[in-house]
Amino acid sequence: MGETIKFEIPEWVWKFHGHICPFMPIGYRMGILAMKELGIERVKDHGAFAFTEMGVGHPQTCLIDGTMAATGCTYGKLMMERLGYGKVATILYTPGKRAVRTYLRSEFQDELGKFEFFAYRKKGVEPSDIPPSVSEKVVNFVLEAQDDELFKVERLSDFAFSRPKGSFAKVKCSKCGEYVFERYLRTVDGKPTCIPCSELKQTWVDVLKGQQ
Amino acid sequence: MGETIKFEIPEWVWKFHGHICPFMPIGYRMGILAMKELGIERVKDHGAFAFTEMGVGHPQTCLIDGTMAATGCTYGKLMMERLGYGKVATILYTPGKRAVRTYLRSEFQDELGKFEFFAYRKKGVEPSDIPPSVSEKVVNFVLEAQDDELFKVERLSDFAFSRPKGSFAKVKCSKCGEYVFERYLRTVDGKPTCIPCSELKQTWVDVLKGQQ
Repeated sequence: MGETIKFEIPEWVWKFHGHICPFMPIGYRMGILAMKELGIERVKDHGAFAFTEMGVGHPQTCLIDGTMAATGCTYGKLMMERLGYGKVATILYTPGKRAVRTYLRSEFQDELGKFEFFAYRKKGVEPSDIPPSVSEKVVNFVLEAQDDELFKVERLSDFAFSRPKGSFAKVKCSKCGEYVFERYLRTVDGKPTCIPCSELKQTWVDVLKGQQ
Repeated sequence: MGETIKFEIPEWVWKFHGHICPFMPIGYRMGILAMKELGIERVKDHGAFAFTEMGVGHPQTCLIDGTMAATGCTYGKLMMERLGYGKVATILYTPGKRAVRTYLRSEFQDELGKFEFFAYRKKGVEPSDIPPSVSEKVVNFVLEAQDDELFKVERLSDFAFSRPKGSFAKVKCSKCGEYVFERYLRTVDGKPTCIPCSELKQTWVDVLKGQQ
């Protein structure tokens, strides 16, 4: 019988994520595998984009943190974006090159769901309050699995994405005096105004949907 | 004359971000200051939300990575969201408690803009290709500044945000067979279908705006 090989997650990635759970390491492994498929290294600047198919209002989004850490495609660098399909999958895209989609196999999702960890989560217990022995079991299940047990990998030949054209131009809002990047400037009574000062009476839902 | 105190950014945060730039440390300091103002610790699970007022298509978004690292309010845990105001500010919110907004002072933005680092950026040079001595100068300017030189801090007494109601329920798409969280399931010919299989012919722009 061969020895079980356990995948290693760097300590700083756990630190970044904040708690022990199985989905952060799944996202990390997803990122590592997708980079290997594309033949690219971890991104220092803006050389690749990760699109998670996850949405909001459901569990397992923690995988996004793992993928950001593994690939360097971070939300701050505008290289990680949510597509809102509610699926446990990620697309890694190298502009002008290729795209790879990694889906967490349904069979693996089924097996994972049987672990006690999720009984705690469904009762609303926060991951950092779950007994460490319970968390460790499900994390080890993830770290000891083979790539092909975990993931279905496919090339997306027609995937395209263009980053919005960038600009450094900014103007001060005529009301609050704060700087605003021009793309987001509004005009009220003929004067440049920031969105909050423009009193467009948006709800938070509108704002989160980007309907400014 | 007093000694200059230099703010320290943990090594793993640089590692996570991927390159040396001044905005990641600004965001980190923003997060630390906002937590201090709210009297909270770094979040392990889901105890606080960070809303960045930044958008897309402009520079300086790197600050988001610093704030995620400092506060533990990560995109993966659905605790960091972009508001799209195009302003260099962040709101940190403790549900049922208080909210603090931190804005990078316009005067500081003006001073920062004079550094050679930004001449390189405006020419399109990626941060990791900028000479280290050039990057170091602007980063030190950020790390040696006092909190009140950097930030305007205000309490937002009427800030409110509710996390979308969560559900673990998922169903397999009748076309591709992959799991979909129910919130994102669509119906085509009476059958449960995932968004990509539903062929709703969205553009990437629609998708990024969440208009599924």
